[in-house]
Amino acid sequence: MQLVIEPSPSEFEQLAKRPELEMHDLEKKVLEIFQLVKANGDSALKDFAKKFDKAEIADLLVTPSEIHEAEQLVADELKQAIEVAYRNITLFHAAQKTEIQKIETMPGVVCWRKSVGIEKVGIYIPGGTAPLFSTVLMLAIPASLAGCKEITLCSPPNQQGKIHPAILYAAHRCGVSQIIKTGGAQAIAALTFGTESVSKVHKIFGPGNQYVTMAKTLATRYSVSIDMPAGPSEVLVYADETSEPKFVAADLLSQAEHGNDSQVILITNTEELATNIMNETEAQLNQLNRFQFANNSLVNSKAIVMHDKKNVLQFINAYAPEHLILACKQANELAEEVINAGSVFIGNFTPESAGDYASGTNHTLPTNGYAKNYSGVSLDSFVKKITFQEINKEGLKIIGPAIECMAEAEELTAHKNAVSIRLKSLKHE
Amino acid sequence: MQLVIEPSPSEFEQLAKRPELEMHDLEKKVLEIFQLVKANGDSALKDFAKKFDKAEIADLLVTPSEIHEAEQLVADELKQAIEVAYRNITLFHAAQKTEIQKIETMPGVVCWRKSVGIEKVGIYIPGGTAPLFSTVLMLAIPASLAGCKEITLCSPPNQQGKIHPAILYAAHRCGVSQIIKTGGAQAIAALTFGTESVSKVHKIFGPGNQYVTMAKTLATRYSVSIDMPAGPSEVLVYADETSEPKFVAADLLSQAEHGNDSQVILITNTEELATNIMNETEAQLNQLNRFQFANNSLVNSKAIVMHDKKNVLQFINAYAPEHLILACKQANELAEEVINAGSVFIGNFTPESAGDYASGTNHTLPTNGYAKNYSGVSLDSFVKKITFQEINKEGLKIIGPAIECMAEAEELTAHKNAVSIRLKSLKHE
Repeated sequence: MQLVIEPSPSEFEQLAKRPELEMHDLEKKVLEIFQLVKANGDSALKDFAKKFDKAEIADLLVTPSEIHEAEQLVADELKQAIEVAYRNITLFHAAQKTEIQKIETMPGVVCWRKSVGIEKVGIYIPGGTAPLFSTVLMLAIPASLAGCKEITLCSPPNQQGKIHPAILYAAHRCGVSQIIKTGGAQAIAALTFGTESVSKVHKIFGPGNQYVTMAKTLATRYSVSIDMPAGPSEVLVYADETSEPKFVAADLLSQAEHGNDSQVILITNTEELATNIMNETEAQLNQLNRFQFANNSLVNSKAIVMHDKKNVLQFINAYAPEHLILACKQANELAEEVINAGSVFIGNFTPESAGDYASGTNHTLPTNGYAKNYSGVSLDSFVKKITFQEINKEGLKIIGPAIECMAEAEELTAHKNAVSIRLKSLKHE
Repeated sequence: MQLVIEPSPSEFEQLAKRPELEMHDLEKKVLEIFQLVKANGDSALKDFAKKFDKAEIADLLVTPSEIHEAEQLVADELKQAIEVAYRNITLFHAAQKTEIQKIETMPGVVCWRKSVGIEKVGIYIPGGTAPLFSTVLMLAIPASLAGCKEITLCSPPNQQGKIHPAILYAAHRCGVSQIIKTGGAQAIAALTFGTESVSKVHKIFGPGNQYVTMAKTLATRYSVSIDMPAGPSEVLVYADETSEPKFVAADLLSQAEHGNDSQVILITNTEELATNIMNETEAQLNQLNRFQFANNSLVNSKAIVMHDKKNVLQFINAYAPEHLILACKQANELAEEVINAGSVFIGNFTPESAGDYASGTNHTLPTNGYAKNYSGVSLDSFVKKITFQEINKEGLKIIGPAIECMAEAEELTAHKNAVSIRLKSLKHE
């Protein structure tokens, strides 16, 4: 970790910068994949499975017997742990449902909003180094709660043509409608255009490598929306003398192990504490099975010493971290002042991994500074809110003249006339 | 209008298609504008004002005395009408505020969400044929309610270097922080990069021509987010024998007058009614001052006859109209079944213009089929929802083992260790 001592606020913007993602060459490659999937459907997906996943896929759709088999393969202890997470995530997201509230803005003028689940959604779950069944829970539970009618999940098969049993188990548990053995940019293309086996969806969720990220960006050119722009995962920990250095070190490493490009920032109020935590991080690092990832991302990480809490807060809001851990005194008061962050973890016994897995909050969060203008995934991400209004004759008599006057001032006489023609008919009522 | 009699559901997808927007050549032109504004700031904006608006601008920022002058120029009747709209829009959007709800998902595990206003937002208000002060209300009121700290509004000056007084008046009334005399793609570039006079913002809202639309798309490449993808305005009216043909005709025309590319669709349950409404539309058309726009957009409009209400509903959801007017019996029951629409107007005395101006709902709505996956603008559009969690020692003892088990199954041992190291320290407590 690079130690930075008392930077001045004028340096914050530079310090808060993430490394630029290189995406230029990807677009052409991913566009080619899109064109092939659009033209050839399932057969293109099978070709890509052969090429990229080294798998022969006869049937892209996971069958009920494969799901049954997966259920046998998942250990009971893991099933119980998933049940804890399932319950908490459901509790937290179900509380986000809003009742319809009819507002009579003027007598006889009634307006309201109704949340309606996006009809068809797609969830992408990467393969690769670890089976991310926790992301299945984080996306399929709110989709299900939102009332999405079709939830399609795509994940790449292994060389035996199988998806990891924990992913299948979690998907089935959360009410996913169909699970498709396809990964990478081709999976996003399939969700964008639809194929014989894959339903065309309205919105695509989920993490992935740079090909998947580019594919999601391209998908938005075809009327599909996406959860949010993607970037490497991040944590910012603020620790003072009330923190426990070995806990802080463990939290930094839990972020660093994600990948070589993970962003880890530590802020302490003294240099001594920073050094303690850095030493503790080194000590714990050697015990990790993902040592190499953690080590690589720590090289680019920063430990910043700032004694002034006002500066700390200013830096936090300038950086806009995906995850923010406040291991300090008066953490709740500090949390109140945070404007830009994805998810905030308060106190010494609230590790980020709680939110990653099981406490109930969502782990799909804005990275790369997007916490300034994006929320993490929530029930809101899976619904549209439609507005409704109903005006009766009395209501139109009251509100009508204001509409006529404004429409006239905007020189939109047909807008005005839609009111005038009705008011005229009411003249003798 | 083109009359379509009893199309089969298999034709719905084709019938629901919007004309393709041609955008290819725009990207290069707009990118050039972006580069100039990024490089030259205010001076580029002044050059563009000279070139596109034929205006010499000494000071881009509208001064307090210009606002004072505008207040004198707006008629009292219009001020009162704006006050009605202001009050109703405020009522409807303020009711969208959500209280913080702390959820104890397990004993000692407390999670919550908090809405925080996006710090800096930009609002674009086009110049052109009519002064769209109503859009100022629709965007600046929720921005203000959301607690956005800086609200920057850009609008092109006229040849005298002035912005229309009604726009200035509405902006000032709604708490806009700064008003800038710049329009078109250059305004969006200024909001994206910031200049000497214009604040760099996190999110950009507002309508515009194809250059503005392209500019908003490009802005998203620079970490800025936007309200939603734009397209021509639309209405779909479903009318049966309980409707009043001249009201329906007035509603169709109030959409058609927006521009040559406005989309207007009428569905009736009998051919006779369709013919009546079309005749009434022709009759009213001649009285409009925007006759040419209305006439041009009606040429591409469709009147569809469908006697089966189930088909009507299926078509509505396939088309996903920005505005949907239900002028039919049991309109409320039908409204319940609508999945895809921006805003729904129920009954014979609820013209679209009510929602366009003053009833309280927002008029910035998803077009071009985006009602399938986007909501209209609301208070939500101006906030991010940050999640928080606080776990105490007892809580971590209860939830910890599930986290450890899941992290282990995902092969993320540092994630597991962040919990284990804490649980170990609690062993003797």
